[in-house]
Order: sequence, then C-alpha cells, then structure tokens
Amino acid sequence: MTDGTGGVTRVGVDVVSDGARARRDDLVAVEGPLQLRLVYGRAEARAELDLAVTMRTPGDDVDLALGFLHGEGLIDSAAQVETVDAADGIVTVTLDPGVAFEPASLTRNTYATSSCGVCGKASVEAVRIRIPTRFASDSFAVDPTTLAGLPARLRDQQSAFALTGGVHAAAAFTADGAIERVAEDVGRHNALDKLIGTYLQAGELPLAQRGLLFSGRASFELIQKAAMAGCPFVAAIGPPSSLAVELALEQRLTLVGFLREGRFNVYTLPHRVVGDA
Amino acid sequence: MTDGTGGVTRVGVDVVSDGARARRDDLVAVEGPLQLRLVYGRAEARAELDLAVTMRTPGDDVDLALGFLHGEGLIDSAAQVETVDAADGIVTVTLDPGVAFEPASLTRNTYATSSCGVCGKASVEAVRIRIPTRFASDSFAVDPTTLAGLPARLRDQQSAFALTGGVHAAAAFTADGAIERVAEDVGRHNALDKLIGTYLQAGELPLAQRGLLFSGRASFELIQKAAMAGCPFVAAIGPPSSLAVELALEQRLTLVGFLREGRFNVYTLPHRVVGDA
Repeated sequence: MTDGTGGVTRVGVDVVSDGARARRDDLVAVEGPLQLRLVYGRAEARAELDLAVTMRTPGDDVDLALGFLHGEGLIDSAAQVETVDAADGIVTVTLDPGVAFEPASLTRNTYATSSCGVCGKASVEAVRIRIPTRFASDSFAVDPTTLAGLPARLRDQQSAFALTGGVHAAAAFTADGAIERVAEDVGRHNALDKLIGTYLQAGELPLAQRGLLFSGRASFELIQKAAMAGCPFVAAIGPPSSLAVELALEQRLTLVGFLREGRFNVYTLPHRVVGDA
Repeated sequence: MTDGTGGVTRVGVDVVSDGARARRDDLVAVEGPLQLRLVYGRAEARAELDLAVTMRTPGDDVDLALGFLHGEGLIDSAAQVETVDAADGIVTVTLDPGVAFEPASLTRNTYATSSCGVCGKASVEAVRIRIPTRFASDSFAVDPTTLAGLPARLRDQQSAFALTGGVHAAAAFTADGAIERVAEDVGRHNALDKLIGTYLQAGELPLAQRGLLFSGRASFELIQKAAMAGCPFVAAIGPPSSLAVELALEQRLTLVGFLREGRFNVYTLPHRVVGDA
C-alpha cells in the first residue's frame, strides 16, 4: 500500500494534541466503489450482468473480483474465467462459455453480513443516496477539552461486554460533552441505525444540536447516515476513510478522527472545534 | 446487553494462556439475521416488500428498522409509520397510507459499503450460501507456540499504514507459522476475497494445508468464505461472533479468537491445536 497509488491518500488535518493545535498532512485509507460486471453464457449468446458494487481499498481489484466469485460459489478455478479486465473502477469478468451461470440462482446465494461491502447494486452511481441540503448547523460547536473527554464518557456508558467483545457503539453527545444515548451492535452501521431510530421515534430529528461519536473508524456510510440525520459533527475513535472525509466536506460536517484522551485530528470544517486547545 | 437475552451468548472454549490449557465458558456477541419487511401503498391497495436482510446483534430491532428507513430517505418522521411489529427475526414496518413509496426508486438508493450489513436480499434464508462438504482437512494442525507467534509475524508483513490506518488484513499461514500471503482492505471481507483470489489464480485452492489469520474479529461471512476456500483453520486477533462459532462447528473448522502473544481461545475443533500449551 503506497501513498497516492490507491491504498492511501494525503489530506490536511488540524492536529490537536496536549494543548497545541497545528496544521499538517495526514494519510487516510482510500475507500472507493468497485463495480463487478459478469459476462457469461454460451459464445453465441453472451449476456452481461452488473453483479455487485463494493466499497473497497483500490488495488488488487482482479484478485478481489475472483475471490468474491469463488466465495459465492460461482467459480472453482481460474480456468473457468476467460478474461478479466479492470479499468475505471469496473472489473469485468468473462466466464468461460462452458460455465453454467443462472442469474436467478445468484439472488439466493448472495449474502448479507454485518460488514458486508458487496451488495447487489446495479451500478456505482447507486452507492450514494441523495442527501437533502438542509443540514450542517453552524450553531453547534465543541471545545477541545470536552471532545478529548468523550472516549472516557463513552466507555462509562458501554456495556462491559461491548468493550472487549467486538461490538461497535454509536452515541449522541451534547455540546457540553454529555453522552445522551448509546446503541451497540456487531455492525457499526446497525449501531447508528438503532441510535437514529430512537431519535426518530422521539420526534427529535434532525440532530442539529448533537454530535455523533463512533467507537471505531468513520466510513463513508456513517457520514452518509449522519448527514441524513442532520447532524453537523462526527467524532470517531478510529480513523476516517478517504471517502468519509470527502463526503463530510461536501455535506459541511465537522469530522474528527483518532479521538483519544488529549489528542485528535480534525479532518473537515474545524470551525466547530472552538476555544483554546 | 445482557447474557442470554439477545446481545451475548455463552460458549465453551479452550483457553490457552501462558503454557496452560483450560476449558471454560466465554461470552460472544450474538450475530443473527434480521429481515426488514415493508408494507406500503394506499389503504385499498396495500403491497408488501421484503426490503433487506441485515446481520445484526438482536435487540432494539424496531429502532434499527426505523433508523435504516430514515437513513435511506424513505421516512422523515415516526408519523409516517402506521405500525411496527418485530417477531421471529422479522420487523414489519407498515407505512402510513399517505407516504409515497416507489420500490423502483429504492433500488437506486440502496447503498454499498465496506461494512454494510444491509443488503437487498429476498429473505433470511438467502443469507447462507451453500457450502460443499468437501473440506475440513484433519491433517492440518498448529502448535500453541506457533499460533501465539502469528500476530507478531502478521505485523511484520503489514504495511506501516495498515497498522494505524483502520485497514483490515487477511493472511494465509502454514502449519509451521510462516505467513505466506497478506491482503489489506478497508473491508475485512474484501481483504479475504483479495487473498483467496490470488490462490485461485495460482491454482492452489482448496486451502486444505493453510490457516487463515484475520487482523480483526471473525464474523459469519469470513467463516463462510474460509469454508468455501476449503480452509480448516481460522485464527482471529479479535473475537468471533456467535454465528461464526456456529458455522465453524457445522463446517468442522477450527476457530481461534483473541489471538495475542501467549494467549488465545479455541472456540471449535480444538484437536487441530496440538502439542503442549
């Protein structure tokens, strides 16, 4: 994985560390859509199918496509593949004409999972949902000391098991750093859906005066859901992906990553982190 | 999240720690399929649609369903929902007859992500792919000292960025503990697909004489992909989910979790961990 060639990319961040605030460059993992297209059928009657779109780290796309097809039980060996082409975020796998493939059977074989990434989507364009531009309140701001205290407050409210058992937490916090609600799940997006579902039922959306806090990393989908909920501020204990940074900027959300006691990075819209560091 | 009521469940494990091996109970996070069903349309012409299946931690299923629908832009408020019923792993959301919903529009709105969990699947049964029962070689075994040394060997072969940047690694190792190949991605399943794709192209499947090592937790899908690749042994630095343990047992795979220097848990088929601990 090398800088700039696909795996990682450089972004500017405000690093807030032990009372000091400095602008510097940081690396984030690249997350981008890959479309998997299948060409199949007998030579005289070839058919084409857009099989799936996955959000992946670019690189080794051919390996990814073939491994996915094997995992789905579509191919057993490389001999069943006539050609593979990877270009512009699309991998086209042409099956050997002798390989039997029934699109109808695939529907039943495709899986859902807590960290899936490969869904039966028609195209790369389908990845982004339309987000109304009604959001990104500028009246919500947090000071650095409050921010740096959030991980400890989240731990206090998580179940003992969640802390060690591989369970993600999503929480909503107020400008003064109180953790208002926490939801937990094996899937990070499920934890956020559960959290937002409670606010929806309470009639408290949009979340214009709340920040969202994630126990893990900040991916594209979490920023998308935060934007849909009208939340202007996302803080993650883990790192963000490239597409999370891009979408946060586009939606004018403040995105904080690597949030630890006394240290964090502000990736976008740093004006909502106010006061002396 | 309480023991036995949905969030976590108790499983028997062999704990190997600093030279000693003991049988005890351990808690794992429950991972299970939830089907989201939508009832929509005018009162005189109601229609029903199986919208998605997600692998989630049971509990707060109504919150999850409503949060998901909000994130997809289908509903803005709880007033748009007439009733919600959750039973037997199915949440049925009945929209208010006044809410416009076009199934065709949804196809374009559903997203793909590196840790998705909610896919456009027809039913809960569709989650499991058919795994041929040709696998689970009993001639592959690893001794405890070799196992405990794997995390350090994986770190040596991961990119510097991957270790801090929120990138997952999947690796294949030999019985004597050599890391043969490593793949990295923001999605854990993508990393494994990339890895298996290289073995497929090399004509080296099934992986009957290799173990798989994951930098994070072991979920259902990773065990499914390992079984499809014919691999008898999976070790994860993180914890497994309940469904991962279940599937590993069913497929006669050895599943090791919480793999650290000098300590790990064997969740299934411990006979492949041989020699004095």
